Amino acid sequence: MKPGGPYGDVYVLRLGHRPERDKRVTTHVALVARAFGANGFVLEGVCDEGVVESVRRVVARWGGPFTVECGVSGRRYVRMWREGGGEVVHLTMYGVNVDDVAPVIAASPRRKLVVVGAEKVERFYYEEADWNVSVGTQPHSEVAALALFLDRLFRGEWRFIDYSGGFLRVMESQRGKRVERKG
Amino acid sequence: MKPGGPYGDVYVLRLGHRPERDKRVTTHVALVARAFGANGFVLEGVCDEGVVESVRRVVARWGGPFTVECGVSGRRYVRMWREGGGEVVHLTMYGVNVDDVAPVIAASPRRKLVVVGAEKVERFYYEEADWNVSVGTQPHSEVAALALFLDRLFRGEWRFIDYSGGFLRVMESQRGKRVERKG
Repeated sequence: MKPGGPYGDVYVLRLGHRPERDKRVTTHVALVARAFGANGFVLEGVCDEGVVESVRRVVARWGGPFTVECGVSGRRYVRMWREGGGEVVHLTMYGVNVDDVAPVIAASPRRKLVVVGAEKVERFYYEEADWNVSVGTQPHSEVAALALFLDRLFRGEWRFIDYSGGFLRVMESQRGKRVERKG
Repeated sequence: MKPGGPYGDVYVLRLGHRPERDKRVTTHVALVARAFGANGFVLEGVCDEGVVESVRRVVARWGGPFTVECGVSGRRYVRMWREGGGEVVHLTMYGVNVDDVAPVIAASPRRKLVVVGAEKVERFYYEEADWNVSVGTQPHSEVAALALFLDRLFRGEWRFIDYSGGFLRVMESQRGKRVERKG
């Protein structure tokens, strides 16, 4: 598959990033978005150059397409997305179980915005989302929740994504590290 | 299912934790271990009280059983595990694809130690592991890799784990937050 799969656009919007403590977790969210089939990452509020640069470096080395935006208003982005005909999936431990709703979400051809919060998410997002989806009802990690949701959305097909550009590729190996230069 | 599922013991060993930068990511690794069906978390090297306390607080509120150890020697722990008849699964982007080997690993009844590295992992672990398993061949996150591996190992059954103790439980909800006190 190509990033975005049959939906064309699958973007991940990260809310509430605090540069002093979330740098690494937010970078993981962005890299998971890319590796599991999204085609863009949007950072609400701040423009944390550390995060943006880390992700762009990965895209340059390992390929894309994968876009990174930052400093947007989360509310405005969600409204725009819906006005443009896309649907909004908010990941929260309080939502409806992913294994029950992912097949329904996957069956809809609309562009998808996946919203991933940090500690505290405003009520607005629960109300504006087409789907509030939980990956388990235990506290764990937005990084894991995003990976699992995209895995279910794309039915595991993310492993066959064909990235274009970049110059590195890993070859499977039982006991070592095999990295090849592309092309 | 109960934590550990049919294997009795599934532990997660986190290598190379650096307290100044990995606190939150390592905490996510530990919480993912618990939420996706492992029954213990082991932190190699340092004893980062911030991480240990965060995880213990979650266990006290949301239930267990889930054990936390720290300050162990990773090499000794892996050797002990194998001498005790358990098997060792090392998660690395250079390994063999999870969807190809997870069914084989799941079919073996042996106790399982899942090894999760930080930036750089010593050759020792590639050589001592029974399995070097990759969750995709793109750079992303050890948090996501662990979640996906445990999901495949337990075939999605982690969502039915019955935690004992603790006093909080989330009820699924389409648009709000519903948290109940247990019992």
